[in-house]
Amino acid sequence: MITGKNYIGSKLKGDGTKTYKTINPQLNIENPWTFTEATPEEIEEAVALANDAFKTYRNYPAQKKADFLNAIAEEILALGDELLEVYCTESGFPRGRAEGERGRTIFQLRSFANMLTEGSWVEATIDTAIPDRVPLPKDDLRKMLVPLGPVVVFGSSNFPFAFSTAGGDTASALAAGCPVIVKSHSMHIGTGEMVASAVIKAAQKHHMPEGIFSNLIGSGVTLGATLVKHPLVKAVGFTGSINGGRALFNLASQRPEPIPVFAEMGSINPVVILPEALEKNSKKWATAYAGSITLGTGQFCTNPGLLLGVKGEKLNQFMEQLSEEIEKIAPSCMLHPSIKDDFNNGREKIKSQNGVSTIAEYKGEISPNYAPQTILTVNGKTFLENATLSHEVFGPFSIVVQCENNEELERIINKLDGQLTGTILAESKEIANYNTIINALQSRVGRIIFNGVPTGVEVCASMIHGGPYPASSDSRFTAVGIHAVKRWVRPFSYQNWPDELLPSELQNNNPLKITRTVNDIITQKSI
Amino acid sequence: MITGKNYIGSKLKGDGTKTYKTINPQLNIENPWTFTEATPEEIEEAVALANDAFKTYRNYPAQKKADFLNAIAEEILALGDELLEVYCTESGFPRGRAEGERGRTIFQLRSFANMLTEGSWVEATIDTAIPDRVPLPKDDLRKMLVPLGPVVVFGSSNFPFAFSTAGGDTASALAAGCPVIVKSHSMHIGTGEMVASAVIKAAQKHHMPEGIFSNLIGSGVTLGATLVKHPLVKAVGFTGSINGGRALFNLASQRPEPIPVFAEMGSINPVVILPEALEKNSKKWATAYAGSITLGTGQFCTNPGLLLGVKGEKLNQFMEQLSEEIEKIAPSCMLHPSIKDDFNNGREKIKSQNGVSTIAEYKGEISPNYAPQTILTVNGKTFLENATLSHEVFGPFSIVVQCENNEELERIINKLDGQLTGTILAESKEIANYNTIINALQSRVGRIIFNGVPTGVEVCASMIHGGPYPASSDSRFTAVGIHAVKRWVRPFSYQNWPDELLPSELQNNNPLKITRTVNDIITQKSI
Repeated sequence: MITGKNYIGSKLKGDGTKTYKTINPQLNIENPWTFTEATPEEIEEAVALANDAFKTYRNYPAQKKADFLNAIAEEILALGDELLEVYCTESGFPRGRAEGERGRTIFQLRSFANMLTEGSWVEATIDTAIPDRVPLPKDDLRKMLVPLGPVVVFGSSNFPFAFSTAGGDTASALAAGCPVIVKSHSMHIGTGEMVASAVIKAAQKHHMPEGIFSNLIGSGVTLGATLVKHPLVKAVGFTGSINGGRALFNLASQRPEPIPVFAEMGSINPVVILPEALEKNSKKWATAYAGSITLGTGQFCTNPGLLLGVKGEKLNQFMEQLSEEIEKIAPSCMLHPSIKDDFNNGREKIKSQNGVSTIAEYKGEISPNYAPQTILTVNGKTFLENATLSHEVFGPFSIVVQCENNEELERIINKLDGQLTGTILAESKEIANYNTIINALQSRVGRIIFNGVPTGVEVCASMIHGGPYPASSDSRFTAVGIHAVKRWVRPFSYQNWPDELLPSELQNNNPLKITRTVNDIITQKSI
Repeated sequence: MITGKNYIGSKLKGDGTKTYKTINPQLNIENPWTFTEATPEEIEEAVALANDAFKTYRNYPAQKKADFLNAIAEEILALGDELLEVYCTESGFPRGRAEGERGRTIFQLRSFANMLTEGSWVEATIDTAIPDRVPLPKDDLRKMLVPLGPVVVFGSSNFPFAFSTAGGDTASALAAGCPVIVKSHSMHIGTGEMVASAVIKAAQKHHMPEGIFSNLIGSGVTLGATLVKHPLVKAVGFTGSINGGRALFNLASQRPEPIPVFAEMGSINPVVILPEALEKNSKKWATAYAGSITLGTGQFCTNPGLLLGVKGEKLNQFMEQLSEEIEKIAPSCMLHPSIKDDFNNGREKIKSQNGVSTIAEYKGEISPNYAPQTILTVNGKTFLENATLSHEVFGPFSIVVQCENNEELERIINKLDGQLTGTILAESKEIANYNTIINALQSRVGRIIFNGVPTGVEVCASMIHGGPYPASSDSRFTAVGIHAVKRWVRPFSYQNWPDELLPSELQNNNPLKITRTVNDIITQKSI
């Protein structure tokens, strides 16, 4: 079922000569399939097709787009167990994770389909004319969101389904009205090809224009750079490392016509443990955090890599409990030998810094690509003075910082780079005494959590997955939840435009019955 | 009343040694006041104060911010005739324009105040917990828009009130909850200082934190570059040239932490005249366009610099009528000798291109800084082949392109850079036959107009002032209307946060009675 070729629109093509294989990280062997990298001509063809597809797709009725998204979900499910097997083979994740992530991906597609069916997401805003206004008549103005154009999506390493081929970026861009060109993540090209085949089947069944979706293969940086620099590409979605995301952001910013890049990059997701929480619930939080740190082999963007507390007996006790709990957990497999190497190197680098000691590390025998979960500790002063200590180590890793006092803890937060999440573990009564710490944390993150763990990113309208740089390249947008669609649209105004030529969303009689703002009043009424 | 100093927060400071004067363009002489450029220490102090002010201002209740904005409007009015006189002296604009633009500025401030008082603009979105959901409980998540941090605003040359010191960018940033540092436009520093004094008075009366607003003076590029590169600055608003806006965008993109720049830059605002409109209303449109081209000495961002029609008898007649009308209008004064020089140079450059001929040019005697309105013409093939012909000439200038046929006209539109506006002049019956031209035009602009002129930018929620690059640096935002506030905010999520510690906008009982989205339902109800 896996051909190893690129989808250039609906056509499978592999004219190139550069090939490579994916790895089975559990077995540490190459997988059987041979993948052929896209040629410059194939890349050009995919972009040109996307540009042509945009001319018609952008004007399709919302329900037609919704049907297409729902059909993608159906076709992914129709791939059945074989898809899950390939996913596990290429990612090292267990079957349960494969099922869970597929479920999330299906849910995302359907959420955007529902958003389209409901229709109000376009933010239709109407100000009707006042012909007799003095000194000048007021024109009729009507505004709604319209799509930007072809979007390039970079598959992520750590979500082969939910943030890759038909994941959140693709679903939101297609919902927006933008054709999508995926750069398939090189670690799971087989999974990517199967999911791409589902998208193409859905597109054909629903008579989408040729080029609405392409899926391209490339192992180096050339494919990505070519796509981001292409004049017909109008926006980019990326999930991955700070270096990778920043490189794409730079390329996009330096174009003659700069384009938006939404890159969801690194985060160490600081967690602050307040004294009464340590006093009363130390064991509970130690158990919860051991689980959160090791979930998915620590390969979540929201993995808690930094725990901050004020030094003392109670924090010592928490660290002991965290050690015990973390050592109970069986190590699991990382996504790829290179990710395991990066984990080892990052971990060793931080362990080798002055003043850092290890409080827990799995010491048993493990398979080559399995990660020994590791907890380190350091005092606040040392952490403040050494920027290396706040670098992300992707994997089951966390550093506990023993702060001298609250002031030092606050200074540490203020010095942190932007983060996806921040967490406060506290008893209800004490939290009111920590306003400045909470304010400081809020200014560094996109989502703040009270008494919970940062892993687990609910797909809903009130979720923010993004944050101040470098958590994401533009904190004004989210990668998760239906508002992720806003990355790929722009507002557009019609002035005195004839009613019958307006999009349905803006016509007087409101044929789609959507919620609009008419002369500053929110209403579903017609005009 | 004009001291020539910088406002560093509420303090007038002028420790620098570099000074300069503004010009009275009507009289072509220097104005009496001497302005002192901000020193590096003064710049640093203004940014540090803004950063401190942000810590408190961001958490002020909406109504307190609204009162502040309304007070700025009052204090500007309280400056009375003297402000209008300084405005006219520094801009060369007539008194009527001064009054009109002051009215617009006041209206903008009050619009944002009203938006704050009403309160729903924060897009409060709530998903309540489902503790018994399987397989995992659903957390409580609540999202709203929060401010980015200190914003730098660059005053524009052509709107000394409405897009300068307390103009749309400043009003929207203050409404968002962001302190503002203005780089006063060097052509009207006296006007800027007076308006800044009004902002400072309002800030003091309403007990705003020191540093909520600063007004800095600098004649070269150093001040602007220093501000944009400053790590504590979090966003930038700019109205001006493509070169200037792009330079700031590049600086901001190259920072270790890139920040958003909203630059509203150049536009030639294409106008398409369809055959029946030429046939039936040639004279009417010639008269309207002569007025639109020369309004404000052609110094509007939305000035129509490009008229497109299919060649023939009727287009010839339109050009004759446009010539007649445009020659009837008395020339007026430009903003500055340098702007007059740029107008002359830009006009001469285009006149000197192969295949360009002049169809109207004011030939009478005029004062040094007055602009002789000019209409040129060229055929479509020549226009398509020579990119110089689509460069903006800032001032009362337009080029009529005589296209061979509709296909050539469409090719010209597709090749245009992004524009603020596009206009279709048509009879109602014919417009349905020009779908591809209209689609092409829509993809190049932020606002499309039917049978009107692009000058005149209504301040309302459905206005878009922005567009594909280089009309603006990010087409996803507008510079005019209350949604301009979205440039300075980011969405922020609270997870399982205690109700009493949430911002009022997200509390269960909805104390501000704002419209929110609760579990996907739009409602003002409490939870």
